[in-house]
Amino acid sequence: MRHFSIWYTPGVAAVSRYIHEAGGDEALELTWRGNLVAVISDGTRVLGLGNIGPEAALPVMEGKALLFKYLGGVDAVPLVVRSSSADEFIEIVKAVSPSFGGINLEDIESPKCFYILDRLRQELDIPVWHDDQQGTAVAVLAGLINAFKIVGKDLKKARIALVGLGAANYAVLKILEIYGVDLGNIIVVEKPGIGILSKCHPMLEEFKKRAPHWYEAAIKTNRECIEGGIDKALEGADALIAASRPGPNVIMKEWIKAMAKDPIVFTLANPVPEIWPWEAKKAGARVVATGRSDLPNQVNNSLVFPAVFRGALSVRAKKITDKMLLAASKALAEYVEKKGLREDYILPSMSEYEVFIEEALAVARQAIMEGVARRKLDEAELFKEIRMHILRAREYMDLVLGKLIVEHYF
Amino acid sequence: MRHFSIWYTPGVAAVSRYIHEAGGDEALELTWRGNLVAVISDGTRVLGLGNIGPEAALPVMEGKALLFKYLGGVDAVPLVVRSSSADEFIEIVKAVSPSFGGINLEDIESPKCFYILDRLRQELDIPVWHDDQQGTAVAVLAGLINAFKIVGKDLKKARIALVGLGAANYAVLKILEIYGVDLGNIIVVEKPGIGILSKCHPMLEEFKKRAPHWYEAAIKTNRECIEGGIDKALEGADALIAASRPGPNVIMKEWIKAMAKDPIVFTLANPVPEIWPWEAKKAGARVVATGRSDLPNQVNNSLVFPAVFRGALSVRAKKITDKMLLAASKALAEYVEKKGLREDYILPSMSEYEVFIEEALAVARQAIMEGVARRKLDEAELFKEIRMHILRAREYMDLVLGKLIVEHYF
Repeated sequence: MRHFSIWYTPGVAAVSRYIHEAGGDEALELTWRGNLVAVISDGTRVLGLGNIGPEAALPVMEGKALLFKYLGGVDAVPLVVRSSSADEFIEIVKAVSPSFGGINLEDIESPKCFYILDRLRQELDIPVWHDDQQGTAVAVLAGLINAFKIVGKDLKKARIALVGLGAANYAVLKILEIYGVDLGNIIVVEKPGIGILSKCHPMLEEFKKRAPHWYEAAIKTNRECIEGGIDKALEGADALIAASRPGPNVIMKEWIKAMAKDPIVFTLANPVPEIWPWEAKKAGARVVATGRSDLPNQVNNSLVFPAVFRGALSVRAKKITDKMLLAASKALAEYVEKKGLREDYILPSMSEYEVFIEEALAVARQAIMEGVARRKLDEAELFKEIRMHILRAREYMDLVLGKLIVEHYF
Repeated sequence: MRHFSIWYTPGVAAVSRYIHEAGGDEALELTWRGNLVAVISDGTRVLGLGNIGPEAALPVMEGKALLFKYLGGVDAVPLVVRSSSADEFIEIVKAVSPSFGGINLEDIESPKCFYILDRLRQELDIPVWHDDQQGTAVAVLAGLINAFKIVGKDLKKARIALVGLGAANYAVLKILEIYGVDLGNIIVVEKPGIGILSKCHPMLEEFKKRAPHWYEAAIKTNRECIEGGIDKALEGADALIAASRPGPNVIMKEWIKAMAKDPIVFTLANPVPEIWPWEAKKAGARVVATGRSDLPNQVNNSLVFPAVFRGALSVRAKKITDKMLLAASKALAEYVEKKGLREDYILPSMSEYEVFIEEALAVARQAIMEGVARRKLDEAELFKEIRMHILRAREYMDLVLGKLIVEHYF
């Protein structure tokens, strides 16, 4: 009991005074803040359930928090927010941000999620992440890198059709740009009535007001001003990234047949992909990836966010830069290549825990290299720090979860 | 690994859908929210350190969260908020409140803490608590009840002098009123230059604007319009509650000598009481209490908040009513009486864990009786629920903390 006088008052006053004098950053070292991410949602787009409000979003945030700890050794707190506008939400997140070492945004409706992510990334000096954007983008890029190795084509010059331009594919477009893909070759198809975007699109000026991310895609992609629907977008394409709406008949077999040689098909809608993988294969697809855990090549955010935050927090990064995203994608891809790349193994599974360590190391190294890390650990320290967090959490939770499973199922 | 498909997507969607359909209250049963308190501060009055900001307040919130779990089996999350006004702070707390089962406000400067507590208690349908107010008040009332038993006087008719009218003594004044003490007999002394408050005070109208809590005290207390300083306030007083500024010479021995027979002296400033207990005793004080853990009769908030929230959360109370505060005070006092009341044992110590169970039970029963409980457990269920939470947390943390202590000190 006497220990409380050290851990709580009056002992704790010394810690508070030190943080006050040395600057708020010290709280990252002297409190749990340094290893803590808030998993924040306003409940406006929860899974496939839509705008069901903050209370109903809470279970999803809890599940995410579990994955943060289990896969990345990152402490995470679910936080659901009732707010009436994007600006209000931003102000609230900023106000509570001194409590956390990082912010993971989750299940926020598009397009307001783009604005929220951009502003918070700029205005906070801790890592900010919207998993439905960056998480998906990092996993897709990793998968594409490996798929293009298999078919022996150059990703940077490829013709890629993006079907749907929600949070996921908008982020895919951005990461392709950062990676150095020639966007003039990319074709983006939005919903029926809009079709293929381009600078020649008759509604271009309307996009500016109605959906700035459409406008951005329209002026950057589709150099040739191709018009039409998904069928036209797929003609001669090397790869398809569909992230639109649950299938199975959103993408037709005939359209796959019209793609270039050795087509790569990412069909990411959940729970039912835009086209079933076996149908895509029958139509000639060489490499197929989906969003489902029961099919090969799952494009899975859980491969990304625990490792990216692990790396960023371990060096107390001020932000997650674009190059840190690329580093994560490359580490994911290289891990698979080392283990033995195959058509049905372009991405690892969540149970390959070593990949989280590799990926976190790559992210942390990149943060140090770019000068956004507050802590400059050398390679040995970094490895020890990251490995310790990931293995310790997994060991501990296997124990606790194992006990829970035994209690509940047997 | 396959369990993630149950605990996270897609399995978790069923939980979210149910909460959405059945109403947000269900999140109290189906997520960790039901046992979770946010320990929230804006960092404007941290311990004796003043306005040191949210980052520097974080260690104190962490210590508090530890006590919540260890003493009450209540999960607690530290949350520090950067806000520029009381109204903004209130809006932020309201916006994040769907994440929590209760709100514990902490280290917020006076007088804005009064306004914040009042509004949040009215506007939220979960328990809201400002520990520097209610926590202290409940412990002081429990101590007074027992001290008055020892001296054989009637607390409700006593002359009591309150020295200082910050968060603590303002809350003491309110709980005395709720308990049924005749406030006309109470004397409140504020800082030098203000002196004893009363309806005859020359600055009465100024108080309305400058400090509404002074105004409230002035019109309710001191029926006889006594004027002067602490010395005048203590003349003939049965009890003194000093919660003003660190001593040791704020209260003089001669003033104690001028009190009524068998004076009761609560001298609560930390780390140094307004008068040292042995000096007060020499001057004739019969019962002395302080805020220090190394002296007998510690008036300690930690005896209160873990148990009050334990009781309130276990029945999913919508609020903490005034009568629930009285129930907590009475349970504390009765626990000591049963164990054997003495001049140097009017309040229990933190290591007597049974008192937390008794107190939580009393609070929970009162919540059910008043109709503010969402869960109506019978006596046996209540006992099992409360005892389980308190004992399980203590057992688990003794293990973890024991390990930490061994690792750090040996």
